Amino acid sequence: MTLRTEAFKDRKALITGGLGFIGSNLATRLVEAGTHVTLIDSLIPEYGGNLFNIAHLEGKVRVNISDVRDAHAMKYLVQGQDYLFNLAGQTSHMDSMANPFTDLEINCTSQLSILEACRQYNPGVKLVFASTRQLYGKPDYLPVDEKHILRPVDVNGVNKMAGEGYHILYNNVYGIRACALRLTNTYGPRMRVKDARQTFLGIWIKLLLEDKPFEVWGGEQKRDYTYVDDAVEAMLLAAENPKADGRIFNLGGDDVYSLEETAKAMIDANGKGEFTVKSFPADRKRIDIGDYFADYFEIKSLLKWEPTTSLRDGFQKTLDYYRQNLQQYL
Amino acid sequence: MTLRTEAFKDRKALITGGLGFIGSNLATRLVEAGTHVTLIDSLIPEYGGNLFNIAHLEGKVRVNISDVRDAHAMKYLVQGQDYLFNLAGQTSHMDSMANPFTDLEINCTSQLSILEACRQYNPGVKLVFASTRQLYGKPDYLPVDEKHILRPVDVNGVNKMAGEGYHILYNNVYGIRACALRLTNTYGPRMRVKDARQTFLGIWIKLLLEDKPFEVWGGEQKRDYTYVDDAVEAMLLAAENPKADGRIFNLGGDDVYSLEETAKAMIDANGKGEFTVKSFPADRKRIDIGDYFADYFEIKSLLKWEPTTSLRDGFQKTLDYYRQNLQQYL
Repeated sequence: MTLRTEAFKDRKALITGGLGFIGSNLATRLVEAGTHVTLIDSLIPEYGGNLFNIAHLEGKVRVNISDVRDAHAMKYLVQGQDYLFNLAGQTSHMDSMANPFTDLEINCTSQLSILEACRQYNPGVKLVFASTRQLYGKPDYLPVDEKHILRPVDVNGVNKMAGEGYHILYNNVYGIRACALRLTNTYGPRMRVKDARQTFLGIWIKLLLEDKPFEVWGGEQKRDYTYVDDAVEAMLLAAENPKADGRIFNLGGDDVYSLEETAKAMIDANGKGEFTVKSFPADRKRIDIGDYFADYFEIKSLLKWEPTTSLRDGFQKTLDYYRQNLQQYL
Repeated sequence: MTLRTEAFKDRKALITGGLGFIGSNLATRLVEAGTHVTLIDSLIPEYGGNLFNIAHLEGKVRVNISDVRDAHAMKYLVQGQDYLFNLAGQTSHMDSMANPFTDLEINCTSQLSILEACRQYNPGVKLVFASTRQLYGKPDYLPVDEKHILRPVDVNGVNKMAGEGYHILYNNVYGIRACALRLTNTYGPRMRVKDARQTFLGIWIKLLLEDKPFEVWGGEQKRDYTYVDDAVEAMLLAAENPKADGRIFNLGGDDVYSLEETAKAMIDANGKGEFTVKSFPADRKRIDIGDYFADYFEIKSLLKWEPTTSLRDGFQKTLDYYRQNLQQYL
C-alpha cells in the first residue's frame, strides 16, 4: 500500500454518514492528509452517527446535519467536491424487514438522487460507495469472489444491491467515476457498541467491558474481519486510483475465525471475560448464511490493498478505545 | 410439457400489466383453462397496455384500470387470488435513463408494495414475476446460465434486479411462494409494434407490413427468442409447480440467430421485404451487450419446459396477426 496522500492534500471530500463509525475514521485520516472535509449525517438515533466520533476534529471539518433523502440539500452539497465517500445507509436487517419502504428510500432512492445530483452539478467528482458482503447471501463456494452471484437475504441486501448497481451504472454510462467496496465485518474504534445493530462485535465489546458475559449465536460459522483503518485505507486507494473506476471490490481479512474463536480472541485481547454459546433464534435461522469469508485478490492485485492489522491487535486497539470512551457510546 | 390445467380451473388469477403483450396472451390461455382472471393495467400510452389486446375476452375477464404504484388499490385487488402473475413494469431503457425515479417507483417501490400487500392480505398466493435477461448485462460467457453475475446496463435493469430480489426474498423469509422468469426477446401477437419501446422486432414487423425497409443496428450480435405462447406456458408451469418456489429461471430459444439472420428469417416468413444495416448509435454503443443467448437447462429439467415454436413459425403467426390487426397497434 503506497497511498499518494498528495491526491488528497487541499482537495475537497464529502462523506455521507460522516458521523458514523467508518465515516468518522475516514474523516480523521483525510484531515491528516490535508483534505477539506464535509460530513453529512442525519443523526438518526438508531443509526451509527455520534457527535463524539468527531469531537477531536472540532474546527477541522464542516458538519452538515441532513438526511441523504433530502435531495435538495444533496444537490447543493455535492457541488465543488473532488471526492464523495458515500457511506450513509440504513444497515439494520431487522429494520429493513419491519420498515422496508424506509430502507428503500435510504438505500435506493437516495443513492439514485445523489448520483443524479452528481450528474447534473458535479460530473467530475469521484465516488466511493460502501457496499457490503451481505449482497452475496449464503455462499455457494468459499472464499467468495466478486463473480459470486448475489442472493441477498433481507430487504436491506436487495436495496444495497440496487444502490451499488446505480453507482457502477453511472460510471459506465455517464462517466461519473464510481466504484464500490463490499465491506465485511468491519470493526474498531467509533463503532456502535450499545447494541448489535451495526455489528455483533459491538455488543460483545460493551458487555465485556462491563464485566458481563456476552452471547455467541451458533458459534461455528466462519468469518473474516477488517480493522477500520484497513477499510479506510481501501477507500482512499479506491478514491485516488483510476483503475478502480467502475469496479466492485471485496474487502476481507487474512485469517478466518469461527465465531467461537473470534469470541476467544476478544477475551484473550481483553485478558478476561466470558461468553455463552446460544443456538440461533428462529427468526434469524431463516436468513443464516453459514460460513462467509472473502477472496480479496482483485483489490490486492489492482490497488495493492492488503489488511495490515491482525485481529488480536485490532481487538486490543478497539478495547483500549472503549475503555476510555465507553460512556460516549451508551 | 404436461401442464395440469386443472391447477387453473375455477381458480382466481390476477395479472398486473394484464392489457400488455404477454399479460393479454396469458389471460387468453387462463380463460381457456377456466380461470377467473382479473387484469390490472395503467394504460399509460407509452407502455404496452392496449384494450384491443383483450377485445376477444370481453365479458370473460375482469378489468381494473389502475397503476401498480397505487398501493391501496393493490391491497384490495390481491385479496382472494390464487395466482398473481406480476408482469407490470416500465421496460424502456431510454425512459429509465431520462426518468430514473419513475422507473424506480414502478419497478422497485411498487413491487415491494405488492409483496407487502400479499404478506398482509393474502400470504397463500403464488406469485410469478416477469424478470428479464437484461439483468445480466454484457455476458462473461455463453450461453448464460442463472449463476452468471448480474451487471445491468441501465437504471431499468438495476430496478428490475431489485424487484426480482424482493420476490425471492419474500418467498424465503415469509413463505410467500414466488419465482421469477428471466425472459429473453419474447415476441408474438399483441406486442407493441408502433415503435421499438418493447422490442426491436415490433418496429421491424410494422415497417415490413407497411412495405418499408427496417433498420438493423449492428447486425452481428447473436440472440435467442421466445415465442409468446412458449413464455406463457413457462409462466403456467412455474405457477402450478411447487418446485419453482424461490427459484429464478432463464427462458431461451433453441436456436441462436445474429440480428441480420433474424431480419432475413422475418423477411423469409413474410415472403418479401428489405432492411438496411446501420452502425450502432453512439448513445447505444455504451450499453451494447454484444452476444446474448441463454442456457435454460434449469427450467427444462425442473419444470419440463421447452420452447416449441420455431422462429419461422413464430414469425409467420405474428405476421398473420398483424396483417389482420395492424391498425389497432398504430
